[in-house]
Amino acid sequence: MKKQKLLYEGKVKKVYETDDPAFLIVSYKDDATAQNGHKRGTIEGKGIINNKMSNLFMQELEKAGIPTHFVKELNERETLVKKVSIFPLEVIVRNLSAGSFAKRYGIAEGIPFPAATIEFSYKNDALEDPLLNTYHAVALGLCEQEEIETIKRYGFMINEELKRFWDKRGITLVDFKIEFGKDTAGRILLADEISPDTCRLWDQKTGKKLDKDRFRHDLGGVEEAYGEVMKRACGQV
Amino acid sequence: MKKQKLLYEGKVKKVYETDDPAFLIVSYKDDATAQNGHKRGTIEGKGIINNKMSNLFMQELEKAGIPTHFVKELNERETLVKKVSIFPLEVIVRNLSAGSFAKRYGIAEGIPFPAATIEFSYKNDALEDPLLNTYHAVALGLCEQEEIETIKRYGFMINEELKRFWDKRGITLVDFKIEFGKDTAGRILLADEISPDTCRLWDQKTGKKLDKDRFRHDLGGVEEAYGEVMKRACGQV
Ligand SMILES: Nc1ncnc2c1ncn2[C@@H]1O[C@H](COP(=O)(O)OP(=O)(O)OP(=O)(O)O)[C@@H](O)[C@H]1O
Ligand SMILES: Nc1ncnc2c1ncn2[C@@H]1O[C@H](COP(=O)(O)OP(=O)(O)OP(=O)(O)O)[C@@H](O)[C@H]1O
Ligand SMILES: [Mg+2]
Ligand SMILES: [Mg+2]
Repeated sequence: MKKQKLLYEGKVKKVYETDDPAFLIVSYKDDATAQNGHKRGTIEGKGIINNKMSNLFMQELEKAGIPTHFVKELNERETLVKKVSIFPLEVIVRNLSAGSFAKRYGIAEGIPFPAATIEFSYKNDALEDPLLNTYHAVALGLCEQEEIETIKRYGFMINEELKRFWDKRGITLVDFKIEFGKDTAGRILLADEISPDTCRLWDQKTGKKLDKDRFRHDLGGVEEAYGEVMKRACGQV
Repeated sequence: MKKQKLLYEGKVKKVYETDDPAFLIVSYKDDATAQNGHKRGTIEGKGIINNKMSNLFMQELEKAGIPTHFVKELNERETLVKKVSIFPLEVIVRNLSAGSFAKRYGIAEGIPFPAATIEFSYKNDALEDPLLNTYHAVALGLCEQEEIETIKRYGFMINEELKRFWDKRGITLVDFKIEFGKDTAGRILLADEISPDTCRLWDQKTGKKLDKDRFRHDLGGVEEAYGEVMKRACGQV
């Protein structure tokens, strides 16, 4: 499959057409952004780590019965994926309070929930990605009722898989953001990426944040944290 | 039942204890507020209208199988109600886009939804009543899973009843806010009020707003609008 014209340059990835309209090539950059793009920077080597880690997870999740866009890793930074039409929804699954949740509801970070939560926000930069629920998503025509039910079911399944994966490696999966899309046959696939950019990962022994929060809040040691999770993800268990 | 000490003075109602701890007396004021209390004013005669209209609806809804806090109208402005422990949730049911929904998701007012939506916000003035979903409400310990399922079910039932009621009177029920509480036996009751303060009501012929939006947006004719909906609610059909 040959890389053709650049279809979309996002904040952290470039997306290229291929000679087959059913496939895309995703290329991971080292760029990092936060606060809806207001904070920008670079995390050296991040693109390589996120590409590899995301592909590892997509393959694990396929084994667990979740259909994903992953096809084939092409090189350090590039992966062949199935083209989907992305639902304009950010899907967030949480096991402990952190980030926008803690702020929005006025509670501390790190409070474990009795059961995982799932939430949706409307992917719309101009509106600042407002929170919405399944009724709203359907009312706004962003997806069908059955589609969002499937997305919810996959979201919780993915959480179980990722939680177990990280737990074996001494890391608590606090929360994560995923995106789903629909292929031309109407099949719902997990798309985009799963990486320390899109997950909160805390070291179980020290509580140390090993994810993009180090960049968001200028905590330092950003590259080291990404390196550490990569080592743990790929090391023997 | 005798009125005892003032338990709580809210923005639009006063709540008194009675000589029986299972009951309260609610007293409706003419005060009006908007924008989380930042805008304040008076709507002459509103307390009388809201008391009467709310009691009318509570009785209609009881007949339709929804348990409510209503016991007995005591006078023009005062009603005896069952005391409940209010869930810190604002429950909003919508049939058409309007207000915060239209603003939050960047769409026009008046777009009908294929099906009614329900949403919850966390009753917390300091946090500005943030939107939340059923998973969040349970995670934050605001209610149990089964309780919020019951509230959802009642919310949609109430919408069907109120929609039909207003439709017969030439009025479109756009949306409304309700509150629920739990009595000492754990029974979930519809509480607080249902009135033009808490509903959006549009005249079907002229599209004229006949509710608190006239006050919110300084549209004038506020008292006339409240009088008009009262007349339609109580007139023969
Ligand atoms: N399989 C796929 N098919 C089509 N589009 C995809 C697929 N996987 C991911 N995408 C989209 O490709 C883009 C990846 O770029 P990037 O993550 O840098 O975007 P972004 O800056 O986060 O912007 P956006 O707000 O669009 O997500 C995103 O828009 C994402 O939704
Ligand atoms: N049956 C009931 N038992 C106990 N409390 C009730 C009952 N019905 C309503 N309430 C509560 O009584 C108060 C009524 O006052 P009002 O509506 O003026 O309050 P408010 O200014 O809107 O403030 P709040 O943010 O508390 O709703 C509200 O706090 C409401 O939740
Ligand atoms: Mg992205
Ligand atoms: Mg109130």
